[in-house]
This record gives sequence, C-alpha cells and structure tokens, in this order.
Amino acid sequence: MAELLSSWAVLVAAGEGTRLGADRPKAFVGLGDEVLLARSLRMLEDHPALDGVVVVVPEGWEEPATLLADELAAGKVAAAVTGGASRAESVAAGLAAVPDEADLIVVHDAARPFASAELLSRVLAALGEAEGAVPGVPVTDTVKRVDGGRVVETLDRAHLVAVQTPQGFHAGVLRAAYDRAGDRLAAATDCAALVEATGATVTVVTGEHANLKVTTPDDLAEARRRC
Amino acid sequence: MAELLSSWAVLVAAGEGTRLGADRPKAFVGLGDEVLLARSLRMLEDHPALDGVVVVVPEGWEEPATLLADELAAGKVAAAVTGGASRAESVAAGLAAVPDEADLIVVHDAARPFASAELLSRVLAALGEAEGAVPGVPVTDTVKRVDGGRVVETLDRAHLVAVQTPQGFHAGVLRAAYDRAGDRLAAATDCAALVEATGATVTVVTGEHANLKVTTPDDLAEARRRC
Repeated sequence: MAELLSSWAVLVAAGEGTRLGADRPKAFVGLGDEVLLARSLRMLEDHPALDGVVVVVPEGWEEPATLLADELAAGKVAAAVTGGASRAESVAAGLAAVPDEADLIVVHDAARPFASAELLSRVLAALGEAEGAVPGVPVTDTVKRVDGGRVVETLDRAHLVAVQTPQGFHAGVLRAAYDRAGDRLAAATDCAALVEATGATVTVVTGEHANLKVTTPDDLAEARRRC
Repeated sequence: MAELLSSWAVLVAAGEGTRLGADRPKAFVGLGDEVLLARSLRMLEDHPALDGVVVVVPEGWEEPATLLADELAAGKVAAAVTGGASRAESVAAGLAAVPDEADLIVVHDAARPFASAELLSRVLAALGEAEGAVPGVPVTDTVKRVDGGRVVETLDRAHLVAVQTPQGFHAGVLRAAYDRAGDRLAAATDCAALVEATGATVTVVTGEHANLKVTTPDDLAEARRRC
C-alpha cells in the first residue's frame, strides 16, 4: 500500500549532543569514515518507498547538512531546516517543510545510525492497518516506577516495549497531533506519544537490537566499533 | 550501621545461559583470563561488610564453584548450592543456606560481573533507613505499555528506573517475602518485587551504567572488551 502513496521522512539531527561531550553537534561527529548523520541520511535517501527527506539540524549547520546531502546525491533531500529547543519542536520544524501532498510521514533520529531499510519498510507496511507504527524491542531490565526515591511498583515487563525510530504515521494524524500538543510538546520523548494522545491507533512492529541510539560517549564508542 | 550487623550475600549463578548459546552455564564462560563467576565472587569475598557468601549454581556445577571459591581464598564462601528452575527458585535455594544469624542479605546476579564494591556499600548503607534497597539507573528509552501489539500507554520515564543487582534486604523481610510468594515466585524478575508485594519499603540507590548484565552473545562480547 505504502508505495502507492507519497511518503516523506523527517530526519531529526538537531541535538547538541550535550551528553556526548563532543565539540560539535552529535549528527556531525565522526563515525567510520563519515559523519554520524550520513548513515541514516543514506538509508532514507536510498529507500525506494520514500519520495523526499527533510533534515533538521542545529542553527548554523544547515549548510553542512545540505552539502552532505549533495554528496550523497540521491537528490531526495528537499530542505535542511533549523531545529528547536526540544526534540518535539525540531520535529515540528521538519513537518512544516514536508509538502502537503505527503500521505505518510516517517520521523527518524539521526542518533540511530544503524536502523535498516527493512525496518523502515516494516514501519511503512504497518501503516496499511494503523495510523501510526513504531519499532519496539522487549524490555530486558526489571523496570520499577519510583516516587521520591522509593519503589511504587514493579512493572510487568511482558507488556512493555522499548521503542525506537523510524516511527511512521499517516500525515494528517501526525500533523494534527503536533498542532494539538500545546504544553505537552516540550516533554514528548517520541512522536507516537503525541499521536496516542489524540486517540489514534499506534501499532508496534519488531524493532532491531542493532538499532543503537547514540547518546553517551560509551554509545559512540560502541557505534564506532560496529563500523 | 551495616558493619555492626551480620551481612551475607547470595550470588545467583544458576542460569543455563540459553540466550548466550555457550556450551556451558553462563557463570562458567570465559571473561578475561577467568570465568564470568569469578569477578562478582571476588568482589563479594573482598567486601569488608560481608561475613559470608552462598553461591547458587546449576546442578552438577557445585564442585567447580567450590574449587573456584577455594582459589580466590578469601574463605567466605560457605556453600555452593544447586539452583532451581527459575531465578527466584534459585534465590530461595540460596536463602536456605544462609545462616539464621544473618541480619542483612544481599542478592547479586553473577551475570553482572562489573558491579563495584562501592555499589554494594551504597546498597548496604541504604538499609539503615529502608527494608530493601536496589540500584537503579534512569530509563533512557521511551517505554510503552502494549496490549496485542497496540500501544496502550507511553510511560513517563522521569518516574521509571531500570534496576540492577546487588539488591539488599533485611533478612527477615526477604525470607518472609519468599515464604509468601507462592505462585508469584516463578514469574518474579527480581527479589525486590516479592518484597514490595509484602508492603515493605524498598528504596533506590544510584546504580552504575558499567554494571552490564550479560544475557546475549553481544553482551558477552561487550563484557570481554571491557576486561
């Protein structure tokens, strides 16, 4: 179904990478023989189901992002736009640059450079039956809810998933979720949370353990070992 | 306070390590120039606050565990006992071998070879004010509750912790929790969950990101890189 529709991606690369402690934004640190952003950008550019990509970067990094996209040369990057103060505000900035004719929109974090094209395909395929789809992996830790340093509840991890990106949505549902988010926008840790809040159906597809999120120097070291 | 009391540890090393896919139980795979079990066993044996250690191993591995303890030679290992079908049943077997005079009991997974002595000290210190204490680290993933593959709720990760071992308890509270667990025993993923179910207070101390749990071959590869 997805291939008959117009599908766009927003690649969120606007994080300053404070926890990474590098001298530049996270998306522009080295990974293998290129920058971190290049891997996910190439995956999106090369994916046959996508018609266009909008990259969201920190202020001042729009030109390096455009140059990088030109080098990759698949020609799908329509814009490199400036991010906001939070992830959700950066996504909103990206959404504003996605053309109105997009039927499906995928949002992906550049901090996850190892997401596969197959994973993106699974997410898109699930949008045939649901308004949103997110990759999820089982939670292997015991997770507890705490209040004031005291355990309140041990959660049943059989019913928990740790979610990843790319996350895909019907465009109108995603845009409406961001339009209505208001005060909840800054605190949202993923797009799906805002979509869920509208009552739309979000389904979980099988995620990938290899789909590492680069947050800390340890994560970056692990990512570099994999290249 | 803890140093005035009798404190014992149960080291749970009874897992078959099915997900690891090795030719022997997880605790006996190589890590650096020794077996995985040796690291946590040494940390416990060397900790000045502990009076004794009970090691729980798979059936048939009691003698190798005893030989290993003899080599480490701190002389605190009182017994190597046979584990049960689940983690909780193995803990129960270990508890049965801890002397009645123990005031505090710490339960640690051999699958976490990098837990530090300082972490154990923090857990024990917290038992001055609470009946149980567990190390916890912030949950960095977005975690969702799912039902039948559909997202039901995005949890507020500001109130979630991923818990680790060693976990410490007042001995009577821990023993009572296991005695009363009944059908809940097999499903318990940590000791604290059973203690919480009795209404006892469990507090969270700052855990360690380095306190990796070895479950999969990837985890073991990462653990070996750190040695």
